[in-house]
Amino acid sequence: MYIVILAGGSGTRFWPLSRAARPKQLISITGDRTMLQRTVERVLPLKPKRILIVTNVLQAAETERQVTHYRGVAIDVIAEPCARNTAPAIGLAATIIAAHDPAGLMVVLPADHFIRNEEALRETLESAAHAARNGYLMTLGIMPSRPETGYGYIEADMDLRGSGPFPVRRFVEKPPLEQAIRYLDEGNFFWNSGMFVWRADTILSEIAAHMPALGQALAGITFNGDVWELSDLDNQIEAVYSGVENTSIDYGVMERSERVQVVPVEMGWSDVGSWSALPEVVEPDAAGTVCINAAGMVSIDSSDCLIYADKQMVAAVGVNNLIVVSTPDALLVCERDRAQEVKKVVEELNLRGSSTFL
Amino acid sequence: MYIVILAGGSGTRFWPLSRAARPKQLISITGDRTMLQRTVERVLPLKPKRILIVTNVLQAAETERQVTHYRGVAIDVIAEPCARNTAPAIGLAATIIAAHDPAGLMVVLPADHFIRNEEALRETLESAAHAARNGYLMTLGIMPSRPETGYGYIEADMDLRGSGPFPVRRFVEKPPLEQAIRYLDEGNFFWNSGMFVWRADTILSEIAAHMPALGQALAGITFNGDVWELSDLDNQIEAVYSGVENTSIDYGVMERSERVQVVPVEMGWSDVGSWSALPEVVEPDAAGTVCINAAGMVSIDSSDCLIYADKQMVAAVGVNNLIVVSTPDALLVCERDRAQEVKKVVEELNLRGSSTFL
Repeated sequence: MYIVILAGGSGTRFWPLSRAARPKQLISITGDRTMLQRTVERVLPLKPKRILIVTNVLQAAETERQVTHYRGVAIDVIAEPCARNTAPAIGLAATIIAAHDPAGLMVVLPADHFIRNEEALRETLESAAHAARNGYLMTLGIMPSRPETGYGYIEADMDLRGSGPFPVRRFVEKPPLEQAIRYLDEGNFFWNSGMFVWRADTILSEIAAHMPALGQALAGITFNGDVWELSDLDNQIEAVYSGVENTSIDYGVMERSERVQVVPVEMGWSDVGSWSALPEVVEPDAAGTVCINAAGMVSIDSSDCLIYADKQMVAAVGVNNLIVVSTPDALLVCERDRAQEVKKVVEELNLRGSSTFL
Repeated sequence: MYIVILAGGSGTRFWPLSRAARPKQLISITGDRTMLQRTVERVLPLKPKRILIVTNVLQAAETERQVTHYRGVAIDVIAEPCARNTAPAIGLAATIIAAHDPAGLMVVLPADHFIRNEEALRETLESAAHAARNGYLMTLGIMPSRPETGYGYIEADMDLRGSGPFPVRRFVEKPPLEQAIRYLDEGNFFWNSGMFVWRADTILSEIAAHMPALGQALAGITFNGDVWELSDLDNQIEAVYSGVENTSIDYGVMERSERVQVVPVEMGWSDVGSWSALPEVVEPDAAGTVCINAAGMVSIDSSDCLIYADKQMVAAVGVNNLIVVSTPDALLVCERDRAQEVKKVVEELNLRGSSTFL
């Protein structure tokens, strides 16, 4: 089993903690190891043959730094010259794995998700691996716990009862609330987690079928000698990326392929999409407040606040539903329901050329 | 003219910027010189003979440090062994001045007030000095600009029209709102500023008359040689303070004396009583927000916030009427109307024994 970790994100929604050079996956939102490190650690018990981390050239050095201390497993960091969404990243990783082990099993995991029950993840991956060996594209579907309108959904064909895997009827874009409520009721809709299991040769032949331009570009990559000397590939990767389109694997392959199956899983998952997702990652106190990385907290008649401190003593007086984030060089105060608008702050700083704070 | 600056305050309402060892007068709320330094600087053009700063023994060293660089004027720092309110502090300063210059004019100023129009202050002090030379206890009355319920008032006898000084009819404690509105209407009520001008011998004889115990204790202080070698006085001050009561000069003398007059003044005054007073000190922006000590600010749909940053870039998203204060070791978020409750935070930290943050 090969683990491919997609770590190329450049999220701006965790500003000011996340920055251009330290996006969400490279920071620690809960105050201990970074999200990338937690992603690596949660697959180590699966004893993968290798771990390939695909990231952006800007973050490659820091990515490398964060994983050098893991022993007993080979970890390669592959630097994309530019961000082209998930299809090229996955295709590149599959090409590298296939050159060494054509039918090698490949697990694709985003580097910036939170999973409370890691054992459930590992069990699900192993169960998905069974079907993947038979040539299916397996996707993990999160059992929805609320009518979320911020995620895409996967509709499963559950006519044949059982615990899955199930054939996939269709992928659905982020739905309006009414529809999301219906999905929750119907019981055969799952959140699209962006976690996949397949054989390297399966995904490559599906890419060749549904994304011929990408397939051709990848097929042109040649390997000399030890396939794992990835630094030799830099120029070829550069050439591939100069021509490929920005396409997600969902849009490019999963929504078109006939070989897609979904494995439902309940594992306390969160994509930690913005500061407002903190309560999914850290249990709130009795007043509904999450206070992270603080020297302590005094709360007077306050509730439902999400606070990330810079090791400071925090005091809240008469405030509710606030997001407050303090870092050595920036301070964010945001109405809790408007966490999505934090990216507007980054846009404004960009416009002003305030690169120190980006 | 001798200037006596009362710098013994231990305010907790500017936590976390103010601390036990650095109360309001020793910090800079506006980002430049401290309130004590600004108090000293605004009287320097009056060319005072000396400046006496009365402070607490805990803050004496920092007080000294903040004023050592002023040239051309002698500045003495007198350390009270414990806080006993304004009457003993003023009596002690008057005793020291009188030992050297019995009829010396003495101006008493709090160290922690903000005054926008400093020239108006100086003109008023000079006009008050005239009447003070004739043996009156002169008090500065601030022209009220709103029906403030947080201040005491001075009712003047303005039957004899003119610009003042006017005889004082009575001192009034903090009034309820209805009464404060009436005072504003009537036009002869002024805010009690705690700023005074009198001769040293006048105030000492009034203390002797109305506060005989304090008068007697002060009369017992003896001076050897150069009266300004104040360090010789430490033991005597200790002895005086061990016996005197905690009494304000207003209650002990001003409310009882027949020799009190008030000089009205309009000078953009604020006692900067809590974080909510920031807009009296720094002009708010078009959205009603005051942002101090920040590297910059991005405001998205936010208004009427009072922010003190730790040189950080500040971003506000969808928030209104908040107080946010960030320091290297503490972070306060407070509903704007509840600034008075910041002292509850300090009380709670005290209870917890969190002395680092006090």
